[in-house]
Amino acid sequence: MSISKEQIEQAHERIKPFIHKTAVLTCNTINELAGAELFFKCENFQKIGAFKIRGGMNAALSLSKEKAVNGIATHSSGNHAQAIAYAARQLGTKAYIVMPNNSPSVKVNAVKGYGAEVTFCENNQQAREETLQAIVDRTGAEFIHPYNDDRVITGQATCAKELLEEIPSLDFLLAPVGGGGLLSGTLLSAHYFSPETKVYAGEPEGAADAVLSLKSGKIETAPYIKTIADGLLTKLGDKTFPIIQQYVADILTVSDEEIISTLRLVYERMKIIVEPSCVVPLAALLKNKELFAGKRAGIILSGGNVDLKKFCEWFS
Amino acid sequence: MSISKEQIEQAHERIKPFIHKTAVLTCNTINELAGAELFFKCENFQKIGAFKIRGGMNAALSLSKEKAVNGIATHSSGNHAQAIAYAARQLGTKAYIVMPNNSPSVKVNAVKGYGAEVTFCENNQQAREETLQAIVDRTGAEFIHPYNDDRVITGQATCAKELLEEIPSLDFLLAPVGGGGLLSGTLLSAHYFSPETKVYAGEPEGAADAVLSLKSGKIETAPYIKTIADGLLTKLGDKTFPIIQQYVADILTVSDEEIISTLRLVYERMKIIVEPSCVVPLAALLKNKELFAGKRAGIILSGGNVDLKKFCEWFS
Repeated sequence: MSISKEQIEQAHERIKPFIHKTAVLTCNTINELAGAELFFKCENFQKIGAFKIRGGMNAALSLSKEKAVNGIATHSSGNHAQAIAYAARQLGTKAYIVMPNNSPSVKVNAVKGYGAEVTFCENNQQAREETLQAIVDRTGAEFIHPYNDDRVITGQATCAKELLEEIPSLDFLLAPVGGGGLLSGTLLSAHYFSPETKVYAGEPEGAADAVLSLKSGKIETAPYIKTIADGLLTKLGDKTFPIIQQYVADILTVSDEEIISTLRLVYERMKIIVEPSCVVPLAALLKNKELFAGKRAGIILSGGNVDLKKFCEWFS
Repeated sequence: MSISKEQIEQAHERIKPFIHKTAVLTCNTINELAGAELFFKCENFQKIGAFKIRGGMNAALSLSKEKAVNGIATHSSGNHAQAIAYAARQLGTKAYIVMPNNSPSVKVNAVKGYGAEVTFCENNQQAREETLQAIVDRTGAEFIHPYNDDRVITGQATCAKELLEEIPSLDFLLAPVGGGGLLSGTLLSAHYFSPETKVYAGEPEGAADAVLSLKSGKIETAPYIKTIADGLLTKLGDKTFPIIQQYVADILTVSDEEIISTLRLVYERMKIIVEPSCVVPLAALLKNKELFAGKRAGIILSGGNVDLKKFCEWFS
């Protein structure tokens, strides 16, 4: 394994001054419904509203001073863009963010609000990569990939580490899987800090690349992409996949209907705002109660950045 | 003062096994916006989703065993109804709830879900009181008023007590005012446990009876009732008004527009679900920044029971 226990510990010390130690909430009603004892790690309360700041901040803080002055760069329309923008502001350097030209203005404004320079491109992978490469060539900025980067994976691992420190002896941990940064970090932290804890992942049926990759043994593309869990659309990377392959107990898929009813449950019973991608692991647990019955499970609530207008489309 | 420091302390011990010690959250963005350091006591995370369980539980637990077997009763379509229903279930006794026949089914179902017996009546004060009296006469159940009851006020006082224990040396406390149960309890706890802490109340312009009562020196009715803060519509009672008169620093009013923009702020930045009545004190603080500039203020977030459909009417 290329990422060691010590590297995760060092990453945690490195980013601690810049992140929140997020609250762990419990909910009796959901426990009764699940038939298990659940502990929710609330990364929706994290800086920038999502766990992504852990990986982004760790990558940024890992740069040499000479390198950091040139800035950091990425392509993303989601929480990673905000993480890189926020990290750059903390470092006193520049952030260059490439975003598709159809990105919602609320997301563009959030990134600009942290002082980042936004460059728009066509909404396809090639355009994103080429636009980013041109910026890197021009500025010497460091590209920080949203998930396929050991520094990012190591940063995301600190979330499960924190949860396991606060709530020891968990039988299970659950995390969502998109590109696999959070999941592979969670798997590494469970492996190093609580080896008896099994880790399951939740994935939307409408972006089911990871579950297929696990079956075939190579990185697959989702057969179709159609889900409201817009943080989980990407496929795995060559750095995240081997970790997932080695350690994950299983990947459980859920439908958008199940995601929406779980969103409603969390809003109504826990009184917290979470984004659709965030409830995928809880939806998976509620769909597979027999796997977790009578046990203690930690669930990573990954983020809470949701547009109130979209929110209302799901519930009215 | 008829309610002593010791009575609040005893109430707190009495209800502790039945309530949550709710989290205190902070938010850098809102601090920057306010120009003050704010500590939010999250009673939206409380049992039944609101502070009301504190007063209801204290009143119920104060009954003799002989009295308690007859059950407890109230008229309410709001959080107090759920509090009484929940308290009765904890005591293993019956709850009789009188609700107006136009109550939203979501509220009726929540109360029935706790096992309470619901009796419907016409939607006016006389019908409510007569229907309730008939039930009390028939069953011998104890009527627990939503706010004008020393046992209820003493229970609500435990919320500010908890906050002051966790965050000492607050310059200010802020609470909403409807009937005045939470506000008078907050005033008593500040008086007894942190006498240097000034207490302000927030009230909707569309239910501005308390601010007028404070000016005239007698209990007034609001000149008109029109606000989305549906937990704050009632006028003060003869038990709550004298406490408010004696101790409150001031009552600050806010418009529904200000309430909605503060709701949005709390959803988007704190990622928590709160009901309109709940953000009235924060809206009042943001409208009167000069009063609180550079100081430390505790804000009681009173509850999070909001219908997602209504929620979406405000934001779409």
